[in-house]
Amino acid sequence: MEITKFAIPEIIFGNNGLEYLASCARRHGAQKVFFVSDSGLERSGWVQRACDILDRDRLPWTYFNMVESNPRDYQIEKGAAQYAQEGADVIIALGGGSPLDTAKGIALLASNGGRVRDYEGANRIEHPLPPMIFLPSTAGSGSDISQFAIITDVERQVKMAIISRTLVPNISIIDPVILQTKPPELIITSAIDALAHAIESYVSPIASPFSETQSLQSIKLIVTNLQHAQATGDPEALKQLSIASTAAGMAFSNAGLGIDHALAHSLGGVFDVMHGIVHPILLPPIMRFNLPSCPEKMHRIGATVLGRRHTDSNGLALAGIEWLEDFFQSFQIPTRLGEILPSGTDLMPICHMATLDACMLSNPRPASPDDLFTLCQEVW
Amino acid sequence: MEITKFAIPEIIFGNNGLEYLASCARRHGAQKVFFVSDSGLERSGWVQRACDILDRDRLPWTYFNMVESNPRDYQIEKGAAQYAQEGADVIIALGGGSPLDTAKGIALLASNGGRVRDYEGANRIEHPLPPMIFLPSTAGSGSDISQFAIITDVERQVKMAIISRTLVPNISIIDPVILQTKPPELIITSAIDALAHAIESYVSPIASPFSETQSLQSIKLIVTNLQHAQATGDPEALKQLSIASTAAGMAFSNAGLGIDHALAHSLGGVFDVMHGIVHPILLPPIMRFNLPSCPEKMHRIGATVLGRRHTDSNGLALAGIEWLEDFFQSFQIPTRLGEILPSGTDLMPICHMATLDACMLSNPRPASPDDLFTLCQEVW
Repeated sequence: MEITKFAIPEIIFGNNGLEYLASCARRHGAQKVFFVSDSGLERSGWVQRACDILDRDRLPWTYFNMVESNPRDYQIEKGAAQYAQEGADVIIALGGGSPLDTAKGIALLASNGGRVRDYEGANRIEHPLPPMIFLPSTAGSGSDISQFAIITDVERQVKMAIISRTLVPNISIIDPVILQTKPPELIITSAIDALAHAIESYVSPIASPFSETQSLQSIKLIVTNLQHAQATGDPEALKQLSIASTAAGMAFSNAGLGIDHALAHSLGGVFDVMHGIVHPILLPPIMRFNLPSCPEKMHRIGATVLGRRHTDSNGLALAGIEWLEDFFQSFQIPTRLGEILPSGTDLMPICHMATLDACMLSNPRPASPDDLFTLCQEVW
Repeated sequence: MEITKFAIPEIIFGNNGLEYLASCARRHGAQKVFFVSDSGLERSGWVQRACDILDRDRLPWTYFNMVESNPRDYQIEKGAAQYAQEGADVIIALGGGSPLDTAKGIALLASNGGRVRDYEGANRIEHPLPPMIFLPSTAGSGSDISQFAIITDVERQVKMAIISRTLVPNISIIDPVILQTKPPELIITSAIDALAHAIESYVSPIASPFSETQSLQSIKLIVTNLQHAQATGDPEALKQLSIASTAAGMAFSNAGLGIDHALAHSLGGVFDVMHGIVHPILLPPIMRFNLPSCPEKMHRIGATVLGRRHTDSNGLALAGIEWLEDFFQSFQIPTRLGEILPSGTDLMPICHMATLDACMLSNPRPASPDDLFTLCQEVW
C-alpha cells in the first residue's frame, strides 16, 4: 500500500430513515428535486411515501421512472433531458442498483454533457455533479455508497463500468424497513452480490486497512444472517444484511473488484442476466484461481465463513471456498452457467470483453481471455 | 440503535501524501489558501515543505501560527479577522489537535460570525463552513476526521466541546512520514489519546456497527504497535499508529466519548494539561465504573487487548483493564493525578464542570459530580 484513498457518503442508517429525505435535500440547497425510481417501488407504495415526505415539506419534485434492470444509455439521456427541462437541482433515487445507477448517469450527463460512453473507465469525469441523495431498496448493489455506475451501452452490448469519486452520492439514507417488502429471491441475489463485493474487494491488491475491516465484517454478517433473513423475513436479520451491504459498498468502492464482476458485467451486457445470479456460479472457481496470489487473505476468508480462529492451517482457504459452494446450493439457485445461458453460447467474445472491464485492474492475479474461458467452461 | 449517522471526510492516506495538498485545495475551488500551523512544525521544516507545494502550484496563501496547545478563543478571533482581511477561501491546517481545532474555529467564525462560545455544545452551527483540508502531524487527536473542536474559553477557564457535522473537514491527508520527526513522548501521549477515543466510543450507547469495527481495530493496532513505535521509531509501526488514530477518529466522531474526555476537558481548561497525560490515570478507574453498564463490551475490549478469543469467561473485562494499567505504566508516565496537578487542588468544581461537558451525554453510565469526585480521589 502506497497512497490509499477512502471516500464514502454521509450515511443515515436505521428504520424509518426515509423520514429524513426532505431535510437532507434542503440541506443540499434543493429547490426542485429530480426523483428517480421504478415501477416495482411504485407498486409497493414507497414512491408515494417518498413523494408525500417531499410534499409535506413543500419541496417541488419531478419524477422519472424509465428504469430497467441493467439501465441503458438511451434511458439516461432521456432522464438528463428531463432534468434540464424541469430545472431540477438535487437528485434523489430510490431503488436497487438500477434506479441508483440511472440517477448517477443522469447526474453525470446533466452536469458534464456528452454521452455516457464518453466516461467509461476510471476518473474521466471533470466537473462536479449535482447533489445526490440515495435510498437503497435492496441490500446488495452498494451503488448508494460507491463511486461505481454500471450502465449498458446498447449499441456495443456491453455493461460499462464508470468509476469516479464524483459518483459517490452526498448522502445515503439506508432504511431497512424497505427490505421487508421484498421477495426472498431478491433478498438472496442482493446479499450474494454484496458478498461478492466483500470477497473481491478484500483480496484486491489496492485494499487498505480501511477497506479490509469493512470487507470482513460484511462477509461475516452475510453468512450469519442470510439464511434466517430469507426464510423468515425477520426485520433484525434484514437490518444486519443492510449493514453488510453498506460495509461491502465502502470496501469495493475504494478497493475495487475483480474477475467475477468483470465477467458478470460482460455476461450482463449480452444476456441481461442479474449479477446476483452469476456470482454463486463463478465466485468459487475464481477464488480457487486467485488463491495462489493471495493465500493469506483467502485463508482469512475461510476462517471468517467457517467461524474458526485464524490459525496457520493450510486447508482453511479451500475449506472456506467449499463451504461457500454449499452455502450457495442451500438456496436452490443455479450453480452452472448452462442453467442460465442459452445452449451453444460462444463464451470467448464474452471473456475477451471481460478482460477490458475496469474491474480486471484490481484482481489479485492477472488473467487472460483464455484463463476466463477455462474458468467459465469449468462451471458450464 | 434507532437512527445512526456516520460521516467522515475523504481520506488520502500514505507516505508522502502531503504532495496532494495543492491539488486537493484546487479541487475545492481554492483561489487563496488560509494556512494554519505552529512554530514546532516550522522548526521541523514541514511548514516550509507545505508552502513549497502550494507555491509550485502557484496557489497563493496566507499563514497563521498564533496557535498554542489547548487553543484559546481570542486566538481564533484573530485568525478569523485575518481570514476575512486576506480574502481567503479554503483553509488548510497542518499539526496536532491544536492547529487543527484552531483552523476549525476560524472556519466557523469566518462563515457564521459571532464568538466561539455561541456554538458550544452539539449541532449549533447553521451555515456551511469554507472547505477544510487537514494534515495531522500526530497520530492521536482525530481532529482531522472528527466533528469535534475543543477550544478554551479563557474567561470561564473551560475547554468547550463544539460538535457539528459541519466541522468534519472535506479532506484529511494523513502522511505518516510526518510522525517520524516527532519525539517518543508525543508519540505515546497521542496514541494514548487515540486509545481513549477508541475505548470510550466503543462503549458509547450511540455506537453503531459502523463505529464499533473502527474502535476495535484501533484498540488492537495501538496495543500491538505503540511500544515498538516509541522505542524504535520504526516507520511501519508509526504508520500502524496513524491507521489506528484515523479509525478511532471515525469512531468517536460518530459515537461520541464519555467521562474520561469530559474530565480531561475540564482539567485541561483549568490547568492546561494535555489529554494524553490525563487518560492513563483516569481511564482504568472509569472503565471499572462503567463496567456494570456495558459488561459485554468491556469483555470484548479485554479479549482484544489480551489477544484472546472472545469467550464467556467473566474475568476478561477486569483482566483487560489491569492489562491496560500495566501497559500505561510501561511507558514511565504519571499514573496519579497528584503527580500532574498542584497539591491541594479543589477537584469538586472541576467535576461539576465536567458533568456539563457534551461528552457526558454518551457515557454508558450516568455519573454525578460526586461520582466523578470519587473517581478522581481514587487515583489522586
